[in-house]
Amino acid sequence: MSDDSSARIVRHLHTLAAAAQPGDRLPSTRALAARFGAGPVTVQRALTQLVSQGVVETRAGLGTFVRQRADESRPPDVSWQTAALGPERAGQSPVGSSMRQIPHDTIAMHSGYPDAELLPMRELRSAYARLARGGADDPFRRPPTAGLPGLRRWFVDDLGLDGWRDTDAVIASGGQAALSATFRALAGPGDAIVMESPTYWGAIAAARQAGLVIVPVPRTDGAPSAADLDDAFASSGARLCYVQPTFANPTGDVWTPAQRDDVLSVVRAHRAFVVEDDWAHDLAMDVTPRPLVSDEPDGHVVYIRSLTKSLSVTVRVAVLLARGPARSRIENALTVSDLYVSPILQAVALDVVTRPVWRRHLQHLQRELRGRRDVLLAALAAGAPMLEVPNPPRGGFNVWVSLPAHGSDGMPADPDAVAARTLTRGLSISPGGEWFPTEPTGPFVRLNFAAAPAQRYPDAVAILAGAL
Amino acid sequence: MSDDSSARIVRHLHTLAAAAQPGDRLPSTRALAARFGAGPVTVQRALTQLVSQGVVETRAGLGTFVRQRADESRPPDVSWQTAALGPERAGQSPVGSSMRQIPHDTIAMHSGYPDAELLPMRELRSAYARLARGGADDPFRRPPTAGLPGLRRWFVDDLGLDGWRDTDAVIASGGQAALSATFRALAGPGDAIVMESPTYWGAIAAARQAGLVIVPVPRTDGAPSAADLDDAFASSGARLCYVQPTFANPTGDVWTPAQRDDVLSVVRAHRAFVVEDDWAHDLAMDVTPRPLVSDEPDGHVVYIRSLTKSLSVTVRVAVLLARGPARSRIENALTVSDLYVSPILQAVALDVVTRPVWRRHLQHLQRELRGRRDVLLAALAAGAPMLEVPNPPRGGFNVWVSLPAHGSDGMPADPDAVAARTLTRGLSISPGGEWFPTEPTGPFVRLNFAAAPAQRYPDAVAILAGAL
Repeated sequence: MSDDSSARIVRHLHTLAAAAQPGDRLPSTRALAARFGAGPVTVQRALTQLVSQGVVETRAGLGTFVRQRADESRPPDVSWQTAALGPERAGQSPVGSSMRQIPHDTIAMHSGYPDAELLPMRELRSAYARLARGGADDPFRRPPTAGLPGLRRWFVDDLGLDGWRDTDAVIASGGQAALSATFRALAGPGDAIVMESPTYWGAIAAARQAGLVIVPVPRTDGAPSAADLDDAFASSGARLCYVQPTFANPTGDVWTPAQRDDVLSVVRAHRAFVVEDDWAHDLAMDVTPRPLVSDEPDGHVVYIRSLTKSLSVTVRVAVLLARGPARSRIENALTVSDLYVSPILQAVALDVVTRPVWRRHLQHLQRELRGRRDVLLAALAAGAPMLEVPNPPRGGFNVWVSLPAHGSDGMPADPDAVAARTLTRGLSISPGGEWFPTEPTGPFVRLNFAAAPAQRYPDAVAILAGAL
Repeated sequence: MSDDSSARIVRHLHTLAAAAQPGDRLPSTRALAARFGAGPVTVQRALTQLVSQGVVETRAGLGTFVRQRADESRPPDVSWQTAALGPERAGQSPVGSSMRQIPHDTIAMHSGYPDAELLPMRELRSAYARLARGGADDPFRRPPTAGLPGLRRWFVDDLGLDGWRDTDAVIASGGQAALSATFRALAGPGDAIVMESPTYWGAIAAARQAGLVIVPVPRTDGAPSAADLDDAFASSGARLCYVQPTFANPTGDVWTPAQRDDVLSVVRAHRAFVVEDDWAHDLAMDVTPRPLVSDEPDGHVVYIRSLTKSLSVTVRVAVLLARGPARSRIENALTVSDLYVSPILQAVALDVVTRPVWRRHLQHLQRELRGRRDVLLAALAAGAPMLEVPNPPRGGFNVWVSLPAHGSDGMPADPDAVAARTLTRGLSISPGGEWFPTEPTGPFVRLNFAAAPAQRYPDAVAILAGAL
């Protein structure tokens, strides 16, 4: 009832203020209380609201006045910012097209996430509801900055790593946050970072934002060769390297055991860190490689794995494994950027992954991905024979497609133009240039097969072929 | 049933592998299927699990083998990191003691968050459960990188800002993430940033992590004087400034209208940005000041407000308001660091703040804070008359306490030693040094009165007085 009075007083004063001049005095608290049959607390509540809305101001002992408003007759003028901000910083990098929002009827093959129908939505919703309704306080209490102990333990156990402990793990709010903090913690502005090329656009952007100079190395038969990697470290002085040994994004490559050994030897020789982004750990289709970190006990590997892609976009939860002083620096960088990860997201993650349904979900997800991949590859072969798939993926959910070097008009294919054309025709794809830290070595596009249903792939391929 | 078989096969092979030598061959798929009466899919599932645990490896066409394990006889050796990591970077800064985890029976007066009993826990839990059980997909779908449109609109409306639009707002995963991204976006390594001193430790740490040089200005009567601020900008060339005009953390200061005008004039004259951290917007006790941003239309003010302190530690959701190219740069920096904010956290925030209960909750919270503040101030006056409270707070939840310059033994008080002593005696407080970007101007401690219940304040004050 007093809420109603308060709302009526607010409306009344809004009307008065709109009709009055700035600086005009409004009725006193006593007058308002009498008029609306309200107590002084109710009147005060209404005035507080109007003050916070900038409609009135109160002057101690004098009363309430219509506020002097900022000059509303002219539009904001932000032109001074151009000189104040100065040149574009090295740190700026466009956000990848995989973050694009598209109309509902467009075929989504650009995304970095699977469709909700591939995810354990029922179990996820149950977990949120259970934790919300349950008596436990932990999901609602500020967690340790390194994350909930149970979740850290689960990650270490699930990876089956010998000799690693929960205390080597730090929880981050998603893989991107883990990457960004790691780059900032282990290298400084102007330092070099070695990266496979092409690679994940978000790692390229995070390295640039940290002010790092990206030294690209090509993949030879799917992995950096020892010679190239050694050259990159030696010539740049880099102490940091970013890799995706398993189901690389976008190419789908998987390093062989020999290639893994080679990379680790070079990294050790240069006393460097290698950041292993195991982004598709839960998305294995045909093979289940062990993470690189399982072969390296001495803290050269910083390992990152996220649950966002296999569990839910709501669960921005990743684990980072690191040893030695590097781990402390990374945890510090994470805390300074984000303080901590929402405890309910950590609790929901732990709730779902420790239920038997989780393993069944992963099997279902992987089976679905296999099926969709095969349909897409068949559709490409049938509907767009001029396109080449250098490396049919064995995990992840992307097909990396090589466009014909010369289009029908004799000009080299331009992936950006092709992607723009397909978008106007109802198909959203990622142009390949975004995945190269320097000049692209050829015209590519990336097709995601986890977001759109398989029955739309023939249409998608037809649109793509028509856009060349 | 096949899950049981799979688990039995996993246990069996674990036993065999433990007894065997690396490289030994294990029973074939067919033999395992026969022995356990399981289908080939079940056997394959067990093998996949063992491969991912690093126990066995499969070689195409040859069979399954016990894996060569890393040398487990020696402990990890991370000593190489000392030289590889090099000197401590400028970006490193200790995490404030307010993030400390303490034993349950310790009196918590160090925290940066209120106790759950001051927060709308019932409504919060209901919101999670409702969204989890409800039919809407939006809380579970990847949101625009700038945040859910409805939440952005609510923030702009709630602040009652003239001429600001939802498109000026960006949602960040908490105030700290917003701060860090803003510093990185608007200044580069080596650039200067002007800050009030003392100020929020997290802002100091974030500025250092971004490689910025902090130029401190003192508060004169609660705010930077125009002369000091002008001097700081002119001498350092800074284009960026960080302030808390309302209920500053830790001092509780509130800028007067004249001080606000002065600061904005200087900022405009230097064509600079001022980051307004309105951390205690929902925690007003005696006055409700308007945000600085409401007086400045031309994009000089970047405004940050978080819901974490007034709603829940689970809701890592903040809004950032900015205009012009600065807004684009900040949104880009946020996206590169974090991609997006969990949509369910945004949906829960919007759900709770748009219910009538939200206003009642804020009134209750503010009333409680007033009561606790008054009890604490009375307890300090009665139990520790040697302590001085220069500025009893009118908002927020901290009392900034000045320790006697000379202890009973004639030595200057050392806040770190005092805080360490109180901690061993069951009281956790924040030593003042953490809040100064450079040398502290005196011995202070910060006492939070939102985490521990008021009946414990007399004990707390007794412990503090005894630790001097």
